[in-house]
Amino acid sequence: MSKVVLERLSLLRKFLADKSLSAYITFSTDPHSGEYVPAHWESRKWISGFTGSAGTVVVTADAAGLWTDSRYFLQAEEQLAGTGIWLFKERVEGTPTIAAWLGEVLAEGAKVGIDGYATPLYLAESLKSELCDYGIELALCDDPYGSIWHDRPEMPSGSPYLLPLEFTGEDILCKIDRIRKTMDDGGTDFIVISSLDEIAWALNMRGNDVHCNPLFLSYLLVSREEAVLYIDSMKLTDEAGEYLQISGIRVREYSDIAKDLTALHGMKVQMSSQVNVALYEAASSSNEVIVKASPVVEMKSVKNEVEMTGFRNAMIRDGVAMVKFLKWLGENVGTGKLTELNIDEKLYEFRASQKYFKGISFDTIAGYNEHGAIVHYEATEETSSDLKEEGLLLLDSGAHYLDGTTDITRTISLGALTDEQCVDYTLVLKGFIQLAMAEFPHGTCGTQLDVLARQFMWKYGVNYGHGTGHGVGHFLNVHEGPHQIRMNNVPAILLPGMTVTNEPGIYRAGRYGIRTENTMLVVPSRETEFGRFYKFEQLTLCPIDMRPVIMDMLSEEERLWIDGYHSKVVELLSPYLPEDEAQWLRKAVGQTV
Amino acid sequence: MSKVVLERLSLLRKFLADKSLSAYITFSTDPHSGEYVPAHWESRKWISGFTGSAGTVVVTADAAGLWTDSRYFLQAEEQLAGTGIWLFKERVEGTPTIAAWLGEVLAEGAKVGIDGYATPLYLAESLKSELCDYGIELALCDDPYGSIWHDRPEMPSGSPYLLPLEFTGEDILCKIDRIRKTMDDGGTDFIVISSLDEIAWALNMRGNDVHCNPLFLSYLLVSREEAVLYIDSMKLTDEAGEYLQISGIRVREYSDIAKDLTALHGMKVQMSSQVNVALYEAASSSNEVIVKASPVVEMKSVKNEVEMTGFRNAMIRDGVAMVKFLKWLGENVGTGKLTELNIDEKLYEFRASQKYFKGISFDTIAGYNEHGAIVHYEATEETSSDLKEEGLLLLDSGAHYLDGTTDITRTISLGALTDEQCVDYTLVLKGFIQLAMAEFPHGTCGTQLDVLARQFMWKYGVNYGHGTGHGVGHFLNVHEGPHQIRMNNVPAILLPGMTVTNEPGIYRAGRYGIRTENTMLVVPSRETEFGRFYKFEQLTLCPIDMRPVIMDMLSEEERLWIDGYHSKVVELLSPYLPEDEAQWLRKAVGQTV
Repeated sequence: MSKVVLERLSLLRKFLADKSLSAYITFSTDPHSGEYVPAHWESRKWISGFTGSAGTVVVTADAAGLWTDSRYFLQAEEQLAGTGIWLFKERVEGTPTIAAWLGEVLAEGAKVGIDGYATPLYLAESLKSELCDYGIELALCDDPYGSIWHDRPEMPSGSPYLLPLEFTGEDILCKIDRIRKTMDDGGTDFIVISSLDEIAWALNMRGNDVHCNPLFLSYLLVSREEAVLYIDSMKLTDEAGEYLQISGIRVREYSDIAKDLTALHGMKVQMSSQVNVALYEAASSSNEVIVKASPVVEMKSVKNEVEMTGFRNAMIRDGVAMVKFLKWLGENVGTGKLTELNIDEKLYEFRASQKYFKGISFDTIAGYNEHGAIVHYEATEETSSDLKEEGLLLLDSGAHYLDGTTDITRTISLGALTDEQCVDYTLVLKGFIQLAMAEFPHGTCGTQLDVLARQFMWKYGVNYGHGTGHGVGHFLNVHEGPHQIRMNNVPAILLPGMTVTNEPGIYRAGRYGIRTENTMLVVPSRETEFGRFYKFEQLTLCPIDMRPVIMDMLSEEERLWIDGYHSKVVELLSPYLPEDEAQWLRKAVGQTV
Repeated sequence: MSKVVLERLSLLRKFLADKSLSAYITFSTDPHSGEYVPAHWESRKWISGFTGSAGTVVVTADAAGLWTDSRYFLQAEEQLAGTGIWLFKERVEGTPTIAAWLGEVLAEGAKVGIDGYATPLYLAESLKSELCDYGIELALCDDPYGSIWHDRPEMPSGSPYLLPLEFTGEDILCKIDRIRKTMDDGGTDFIVISSLDEIAWALNMRGNDVHCNPLFLSYLLVSREEAVLYIDSMKLTDEAGEYLQISGIRVREYSDIAKDLTALHGMKVQMSSQVNVALYEAASSSNEVIVKASPVVEMKSVKNEVEMTGFRNAMIRDGVAMVKFLKWLGENVGTGKLTELNIDEKLYEFRASQKYFKGISFDTIAGYNEHGAIVHYEATEETSSDLKEEGLLLLDSGAHYLDGTTDITRTISLGALTDEQCVDYTLVLKGFIQLAMAEFPHGTCGTQLDVLARQFMWKYGVNYGHGTGHGVGHFLNVHEGPHQIRMNNVPAILLPGMTVTNEPGIYRAGRYGIRTENTMLVVPSRETEFGRFYKFEQLTLCPIDMRPVIMDMLSEEERLWIDGYHSKVVELLSPYLPEDEAQWLRKAVGQTV
């Protein structure tokens, strides 16, 4: 591989020389700032051979570096061996920033290139101002990979399809109207929407262009008079084309948007800092650009009645699949034939046979014992562990259904456990229950509630590094904002209709990991002289393994909550389970009090 | 009164005409941005007749307005009657900002005056930029009250005194050195310190210039080579003068600082946004001014071993006074002669007879029944209620001792209570205990812990509008930063050695108020593979009234905490109590389990 990478680097360096650039920076982003990047834009992997999900490669005429975070230090070292690309460890003392390093190796007045389409505005802006301190210019240039990457994968070409009103609950005209209303309030003439889930939500369409996300490549430009969808017109089915036409959405080619923005004059154009910098440059050439969060982010996060009902129904089907899987797992772990990889196949089968199933919502994390401690573990042929009748299996998975998206983690006892495992399991469960039981006034953000999930483990000197909760899209991205539940400040408040996960965990490196996760819905609880209060409804319907629980560590209130939750699970899932599975479920949930 | 105010307004209007100003703004601030403003700077009260603690008066040639918050709407209406000053209700829809109002009543190009000394930089800057939108200029001018307010109170003239090392634990040279070290780090040449508690802390001196705060009027200017104290030299005793000289602190007159700052050239001068804008203007005339938080804020907030020991000892004495008071109160409430006002006198007596007592740390809040619901209630001859043998008395008080400052609230049952009072009391207590028991990792800020105190009442649809906790100075201001525990985001993290109060409450307007408050100390708890963890030590030593508690609402853990806390109170206070009082204390705390 290193020889191949060296050849690729020399092609990029030839490009640098041709364009009079001193360096080129390849980010891991695509034109839509998505969590999953289509293969067409995986140029950072191609140029460096490094396959981790996060990293930035900087190439100068005679040096190259990869910046990545601690999750990938080992992997990067192995994959970069022999390529001459230096590894720069992010957030390690002494590691220079990209700008500082370029400031050192390049002369003042040097020009550094980026592809404006593959770089979001906020990244370009911060890099630009840092480089400015070193007298270095950041310049948008042609995408070098368009010429040097000969077997580059095509852009995704799936056909988008309509999601009927029975699933969305609000038609396209209403949604476009709501977007326009925010424009009136802000005096905006045009709004550029480039996040694919926002476009899918606004148009009530879904697609197949992105791994695990039901999205289609496009931009949406909304003005006071019209809305224009920029999309490869070859991808549009007759049905979709007709739907868009009837809905008053004009269609233009995907690549036309920059040209169209450049053609505007004296307008107020709004876009978020996630929009790629090429579009920002196009719009700002002769217009006033207002950079602020897209109004669709909050609209999309607050689910309407139809979406909420859809979520509840999807969760029943997902719960049925999970129960079938858990029963099967318990009955088969003794065969010695189960592995992290093949149980995922079985889980997929159970889910795929459910109505409205549209694929998984993210790559399953099935981490047995020590693999459970690796927060973003994904089993491969090389790493996959055989499951034995002892220890803990952490299983984080989810699916898309036409009526909702699911995200659930259960940690399952496969047999004998240590006392420490049981204590940790119970600490996670206590935090999970306390957050699930919370009530809170209007105006509360997730950061304020986060401690509820951590309070007990903190008393044991334990903590986890990830957030406690994120929004979940309605048959859309499994991670969506604007709200989160986490330690650092995220000011977006929790509103009725928002979905949010509850997923505390404990990870003992090299030994085991525990996480319990439900997806929840914010619902009104009461209104008093002190204002409106909200609480959480548990959307996820699946038993929580009670075998590792140290009952004495649970308060009476916590036991009652568990029993109440399990009663609801039994009641809602049983009608859809054959008697033997229903019986298994009743036995599995038991009674704590 | 209204006639007097009208005369004063006409004097101010004459000043406006003389100075070619279109308006003058009188804030409620002094040159040091203190919480308590010395009478000399109470010009807003003088010009308007409005005596509330918060408010801003704007006077033009033919109109005048007072802006104040909801606490003072009624009072302001009464006090402004007949003065022609309009009341502008802050945070009420439709109320214009000061800038918007001036934009309406003044012509473009108008000049609005403020006294640069009595206005902190952050206030002046935000007002300046708002007025700019209306084409109005904000101008520093002479203090009009210097000429028009004939019987203006003198500036305070108390003599500062030394606080020996046995109380401070760190000498003046070390402190100045530590300040200088931060200057080295930031490349700063001069740092202007204008907050009086920071100066008192840095110099190990205290004074009598401010109500309830042991402070003295001065500025401190620290450079790499020297430190200069700007103070009325007449106030310095021989001892203080000698001490400053030996410590290498040069003394200049209080009014010389602006002149000295103006005389600097090409220097980097640091000041906080709390420094008055006159000094900012002086320093920025020919220097680079860096506006950032004073390094003393955090230094002062983290108590050293001697200060911590001092706090613990002061709390014993304060607890002894409180126990004597509580016993006396219980024995005398039946006489029918007690009032909100006269019990405060008795409490003062008990405190004043304690060693090292140096006065109260804030005006006592003694709120009986409905007065308890007024968060900043201060009884007066007109409002003072007679105490009866029923209902709740909220008592929030504190004192300064040479070795520490106290802040404690107890809500005391005087007899029969309603069920609702008992439920509310128990909800407050549960939150108080959960916060008191918290453990948390390094990096946690108060905002993250706030919900622990509110979680139970939120489940009853109840909340309180104030913060849950603030820092307490070491024989300094009873409110100090940078940390706080509150709902809105305050990013300063909690560090071992910081004091912080824990004071949840419930207020039922027109009926009663409940608050329970201890002052706590952040202390290390453990260090694990997940990092360093901290917890709270209870500094306040005083029984919590258990009579209103609904025991069934407390968890076993909460009851054990109460018993443990009360055991500590009995153990630490009893040696200093006569037998009958010790016996009363043992009986008062009882046992919950």
